[in-house]
Amino acid sequence: MSVRAGIVVTGTEVLTGRVQDRNGPFVADRLLELGVELAHITICGDRPADIEAQLRFLAGEGVDLIVTSGGLGPTADDMTVAVVARFCGRELILDAALEAKIAEILTRLMARRATGPGNDADFESVLAANRKQAMIPAGAVVLDPVGTAPGVIVPGDGPGRPTVLVLPGPPRELQPMWRTATETPALQQAIAGRTQYRQDTVRMFGLPESELAETLRDGEHVIDAFDRLEITTCLRRGELEIVTRYEPDAAPVYDRLVELLRERHREEVFSTDGALVDDQVAELLSGRRIATAESCTAGLVAARLTERPGSSAYVIGGAVVYANDAKTELLGVPAELIAAEGAVSEGVAEAMADGALHRFSADTAIAITGIAGPGGGTDAKPVGTVCFCVKVRGGASAIRTMRLPGSRADIRERSTTIAMHLLRRVLTSEE
Amino acid sequence: MSVRAGIVVTGTEVLTGRVQDRNGPFVADRLLELGVELAHITICGDRPADIEAQLRFLAGEGVDLIVTSGGLGPTADDMTVAVVARFCGRELILDAALEAKIAEILTRLMARRATGPGNDADFESVLAANRKQAMIPAGAVVLDPVGTAPGVIVPGDGPGRPTVLVLPGPPRELQPMWRTATETPALQQAIAGRTQYRQDTVRMFGLPESELAETLRDGEHVIDAFDRLEITTCLRRGELEIVTRYEPDAAPVYDRLVELLRERHREEVFSTDGALVDDQVAELLSGRRIATAESCTAGLVAARLTERPGSSAYVIGGAVVYANDAKTELLGVPAELIAAEGAVSEGVAEAMADGALHRFSADTAIAITGIAGPGGGTDAKPVGTVCFCVKVRGGASAIRTMRLPGSRADIRERSTTIAMHLLRRVLTSEE
Repeated sequence: MSVRAGIVVTGTEVLTGRVQDRNGPFVADRLLELGVELAHITICGDRPADIEAQLRFLAGEGVDLIVTSGGLGPTADDMTVAVVARFCGRELILDAALEAKIAEILTRLMARRATGPGNDADFESVLAANRKQAMIPAGAVVLDPVGTAPGVIVPGDGPGRPTVLVLPGPPRELQPMWRTATETPALQQAIAGRTQYRQDTVRMFGLPESELAETLRDGEHVIDAFDRLEITTCLRRGELEIVTRYEPDAAPVYDRLVELLRERHREEVFSTDGALVDDQVAELLSGRRIATAESCTAGLVAARLTERPGSSAYVIGGAVVYANDAKTELLGVPAELIAAEGAVSEGVAEAMADGALHRFSADTAIAITGIAGPGGGTDAKPVGTVCFCVKVRGGASAIRTMRLPGSRADIRERSTTIAMHLLRRVLTSEE
Repeated sequence: MSVRAGIVVTGTEVLTGRVQDRNGPFVADRLLELGVELAHITICGDRPADIEAQLRFLAGEGVDLIVTSGGLGPTADDMTVAVVARFCGRELILDAALEAKIAEILTRLMARRATGPGNDADFESVLAANRKQAMIPAGAVVLDPVGTAPGVIVPGDGPGRPTVLVLPGPPRELQPMWRTATETPALQQAIAGRTQYRQDTVRMFGLPESELAETLRDGEHVIDAFDRLEITTCLRRGELEIVTRYEPDAAPVYDRLVELLRERHREEVFSTDGALVDDQVAELLSGRRIATAESCTAGLVAARLTERPGSSAYVIGGAVVYANDAKTELLGVPAELIAAEGAVSEGVAEAMADGALHRFSADTAIAITGIAGPGGGTDAKPVGTVCFCVKVRGGASAIRTMRLPGSRADIRERSTTIAMHLLRRVLTSEE
């Protein structure tokens, strides 16, 4: 039986959806890497009663480790440490060395701000508020502040009394502190005895999720010990991500699954080593110079190609030609062509790509023109009609028309992903 | 005492962070609008025992309503309805009319796909899997499928036995079904007796969160009945969002808070009616024609300006001039200027803006050039140095240099927001 954990995310702004929780997914991923089984994530507001209820729930579920985030700040609504101390039946004790350390951090922070430390009364009140942050449960391990708030680890006492790791709310503080925490003996002990899992990811594009479900149903019948694989599938940005967790000695079973997927869906499987299409495109663009020509996606493709550091080696730039005049003015798309075939047509997509090759002196270009909606659709070209063209100077090219479902944002986002995959396919055929 | 609710989000892909949960925040927001108090959000994998544990936890916490999402699909790991039925002590009954409805939906979906319904054996197995979706807890209200899965409402029986609203996982299905659900008598009854709250949002830009905290601390002292305001603040994309919930008769207290914020932070408050900077910029751009010139943001600003339907009325397009040659080639930025002052300089930002005005025949332009990192920084111009220029033909202009913290993605994202605010300020001064 592996080691089990629960995560408690505190913060009214997270509960109410004002802020998207990034800590749950981050800690979940780290736990997975460590081979710790995550049973529950719970989210609550800055209320002691609710935090305590969630801690009791997780302890009752028999988890070995609880990780909390948030509520370590200096203001009145930050009380996680006090609640955890009470829950673990430990007194709060002022750690004088820690208090001095926090004061020092604060002094440095205030000096750096143009206004300086302000008057002594202001500083005193800030110090007082921060004394709270130096109150530590007796016997707990202190994790040095990344910002001003320290973290703590309260070691577990046995069944029903799990180890509690208390981390700050801001992801920028939680993430480095997590790493420090995992290196402490207290945490190593809490997770000793976990099963080591392997995790691998297969990515597919262009396959309906129901067809994947069918293949997996078949897998149950044709692959021995299929149940040793814990398979999670999810559809994201039009891409299917199949993440499989398994114990190392079940590797042959996983290999058979990958074989089955490749057999059944050869066209659609594009990655079996976890690589994203962005990674693959970045590699394929090495030594090339690419320019984009975008209408409805209005810069999303150029922005995506430049997400990676080092992309300046192969991205020259792009033209966002939202108005038809701009298509003609910047990319030389003949006005007569736009009039004859419409701005959203394969002819115009190709002319845009040619224009990008020419204007940017590029050897590779990708053009997209479409109707993102909600207005602008007709019977012949409904909302979601998008034309794509990828051109390699003196080499391969591809033109596609797609009908995409969803909202304006969906159509723009999906078009960006399709563009990446079209680029991948054309450049792969050039290799 | 207001009506309380809990949300159970099921799905291993959400628990492990593969997919970001959008349902929790959506439902949380909707509950808030309805004046229903949200106590807990819990997330678990596709495991009956864990789902049941979370339902029991929430019932034990005395919530009046539980909303679940996920686990309504046709595959083996989708079992939310069965678990909810067991939890509520109700049998599962096959709803024949619903089964027929689902079969009809499936037939239409499969006919639409180029491959057609396939052979009868395939269709039979799909139907069989979907029969599961027509099994409904006795006495429950059925919500018609948006995709293929129906939702259900199991009415509550009294204290400790809350109403359970079961919704599909995909946000695209959950969101319309939520609306339908709130119109049913069953749900109206579950939330009857809730307090009607008002909620208002103030937005600020350019203020450190600690200074806002100070102002709010002062508010406690200078504003009577300040504690009648439930204030949540959060920092997102460099913008401070202050969301206040209060009972309608506390409106005068809220007005005093807004007064205080405007007094103390006149420059930084940009919205008191909830409007986003994007809404404000869209209004200010009415009647204008804008073009963008982007280097490090590589299209993010053009993409942001075109998020709104109808933006084609004022967005002509933009130039993504990532390479220095492209700055010269497309926007006429003199190569000597780039050599003399560097690509990241106010002079080049201004030349880019002028180039955009000219190339696109625009009357408004915004240019951004910066060092997004992680490489490319120097002592004089470290990573995060970004220059902005907004120009109105024959009118106002503004040039700024900022030093932004964080990762490559942070710097690009923050620059995009700063660009929007600079645009807002310049165009407001033109009014």
